[in-house]
Amino acid sequence: MDKETTRIEAFSDGVFAIAITLLVLELKIPHESDVGEVALSTLLLRQWPAYVSFVISFAFIGIMWINHHRLFNHIKRADNTLMILNLLLLMGVTAVPFPTAILSQHLGHYDDRLAAMVFNGTYVAIAIAFNLLWRYAAQEGRLLGKDWDAAAIRNISKQYAFGPLLYLAAFGLAWISVAASLALSFALGIFFALPPHVAARRHGKREAG
Amino acid sequence: MDKETTRIEAFSDGVFAIAITLLVLELKIPHESDVGEVALSTLLLRQWPAYVSFVISFAFIGIMWINHHRLFNHIKRADNTLMILNLLLLMGVTAVPFPTAILSQHLGHYDDRLAAMVFNGTYVAIAIAFNLLWRYAAQEGRLLGKDWDAAAIRNISKQYAFGPLLYLAAFGLAWISVAASLALSFALGIFFALPPHVAARRHGKREAG
Amino acid sequence: MDKETTRIEAFSDGVFAIAITLLVLELKIPHESDVGEVALSTLLLRQWPAYVSFVISFAFIGIMWINHHRLFNHIKRADNTLMILNLLLLMGVTAVPFPTAILSQHLGHYDDRLAAMVFNGTYVAIAIAFNLLWRYAAQEGRLLGKDWDAAAIRNISKQYAFGPLLYLAAFGLAWISVAASLALSFALGIFFALPPHVAARRHGKREAG
Amino acid sequence: MDKETTRIEAFSDGVFAIAITLLVLELKIPHESDVGEVALSTLLLRQWPAYVSFVISFAFIGIMWINHHRLFNHIKRADNTLMILNLLLLMGVTAVPFPTAILSQHLGHYDDRLAAMVFNGTYVAIAIAFNLLWRYAAQEGRLLGKDWDAAAIRNISKQYAFGPLLYLAAFGLAWISVAASLALSFALGIFFALPPHVAARRHGKREAG
Repeated sequence: MDKETTRIEAFSDGVFAIAITLLVLELKIPHESDVGEVALSTLLLRQWPAYVSFVISFAFIGIMWINHHRLFNHIKRADNTLMILNLLLLMGVTAVPFPTAILSQHLGHYDDRLAAMVFNGTYVAIAIAFNLLWRYAAQEGRLLGKDWDAAAIRNISKQYAFGPLLYLAAFGLAWISVAASLALSFALGIFFALPPHVAARRHGKREAG
Repeated sequence: MDKETTRIEAFSDGVFAIAITLLVLELKIPHESDVGEVALSTLLLRQWPAYVSFVISFAFIGIMWINHHRLFNHIKRADNTLMILNLLLLMGVTAVPFPTAILSQHLGHYDDRLAAMVFNGTYVAIAIAFNLLWRYAAQEGRLLGKDWDAAAIRNISKQYAFGPLLYLAAFGLAWISVAASLALSFALGIFFALPPHVAARRHGKREAG
Repeated sequence: MDKETTRIEAFSDGVFAIAITLLVLELKIPHESDVGEVALSTLLLRQWPAYVSFVISFAFIGIMWINHHRLFNHIKRADNTLMILNLLLLMGVTAVPFPTAILSQHLGHYDDRLAAMVFNGTYVAIAIAFNLLWRYAAQEGRLLGKDWDAAAIRNISKQYAFGPLLYLAAFGLAWISVAASLALSFALGIFFALPPHVAARRHGKREAG
Repeated sequence: MDKETTRIEAFSDGVFAIAITLLVLELKIPHESDVGEVALSTLLLRQWPAYVSFVISFAFIGIMWINHHRLFNHIKRADNTLMILNLLLLMGVTAVPFPTAILSQHLGHYDDRLAAMVFNGTYVAIAIAFNLLWRYAAQEGRLLGKDWDAAAIRNISKQYAFGPLLYLAAFGLAWISVAASLALSFALGIFFALPPHVAARRHGKREAG
């Protein structure tokens, strides 16, 4: 049965790799004819929201890939439900460049509240999909390897439990302050880049503190 | 010889992964300059046919990937004919975003009958390609593993036998009612997302009923 | 050392898969606003050169993938030169949609001779790259598996030896007749889709006849 | 733990494959309607900067793939830091088509100094990322295989040590001469296409000479 997750991983790697590489298509190349009127440096600098969007999307998709990779270090068997939940998650991943571009285009303009909500709303959906996938696979060790490590599983479950609620908080926070809303979702990005045991420990300390 | 199907699967996974990820390119990002005149929310909502198209294409390509994956759980050897039939099937898969976009653009307009026929016609072709590939590989166990499971093979063959005719029915139904035609093809999508043994059982029940 | 060709194959599969999937981007979706003036059916039919281009490019890239796959059934080790020759070949593969689109746009117009020469010129280059890669790997069994099959190797070498000269003939033929030039290159496409032992046999018969 | 680098390699191969294949999208196909006014040959020739950009980007991304492949012939284990450093490197790789297109568009125009600096600046960043990844993995054999070959490791480290400084020199050289700056960065490209032991030997000879 191990073969099955191999192919799910290969397909998912493909989707992540393409989603992360397509981002560069959003960077427009200033053409000669435009340069007649405006200096190349001006044209390049004017595009700064596109660069910000490129770096943020790249970092977030990269972090999601790391997380997907971590989960499938534990998930060893596949069934029909897992394949469908994985597709649901990948749909969120491929959509990421869209809300990120909207955000970077509208940041600082009067419409930026809506842009921040679209951005954080996407991550609420992705966080839910990650939890569904993981909980389905890990519950009573349903699709894990025979020798599953209970502590490692618990650390992941713990780290993931925060995702949907905290992204929802970031979503709601946009009504009060767009800056605070984005600060929270970037902090969450870094939190999910950390290995689960470190994340669990840090959280534990904070709880103890 | 097992190595051969590994590479066919890797290539096919690549094609499926790219086809499913390219879909996001159809979502257009409203630019600042447009927003001067119209609210961002209006611009985002006006695009709804593109979102519908994105979700439908994603679901259908995902379901086709699941089916491809299922077939190659049984197909263990490859020859020249299999490679060519697989390419034929992949040609159908990569083409999917095109009829889906036509459908979502024209739904509700006077031209929607033609759009629905192009959409369902594509799936007639894909269903035929799936059957050709599967029948060629499974006939007398030609390219199956040594220990092939006769019942599982029969379940797949049974489920697939309905595909071309039912999609053809959906194609013809568009002359009478576009809504009925699309309802049938979406029901077929769900039918092919089910594992073959479940699909066979459900069909059995209905036959018995 | 086997691992090395695994990764070359994975990278090449990725390139083939993307090149073959990007083809659909050339099919333009008629938009609602255009349809106000012209019927959807007219807009879809007017695009026929794009469909022809899609099918031809798909078939040719697919056939090249089958050939690449065949060669790496024999090539078992890798070195720096092989990697560079493989990149050269892949550069030709990724470029294919460009000359094909030029051909399908200009077929039947006064400029079609040049278009046919660009099209066949690309295949001259690709055929040379295939020969360089194969001859480098197969010469005295340099990068083949230990138990290499001398007859199979000879069949491939024989089939490939015709490529560059015959595509060059197709290239030159465009001066006399564009139709004859394209007929020759399509016949060559089918010839390279055949397994080498069949191709060798057929050629043998023709020689004997 | 070996499984972990397998998936990092698969994901990276995907990113390299897509980045190298997307390059062809920059080649614009002259359409029929344009040809009414200007000959196809003129339109094709006028595009020469796009062809130059295609070949250079393809060669550079290909050489970076060869280097990535070489490093992961030695790196056998993975951890969180390696995954993040690898993502950093891939961000540089996916960005390559952008500075290359700027360069090829502006070469020979009054703005070409800035274009050359953007181009070489990208390679300074990529060279730094390659060094970070390699030094992190190789330091005291942290993530290497058990039987790591000290001489091979040293050869790679030696070759890589030159990267950032020499690309920085190419970057600075653009102030004096754009041609000299590009000549240096192309020479560096060839230097990194050479196997590390050859590069080390050549450098050794030059030092001895």
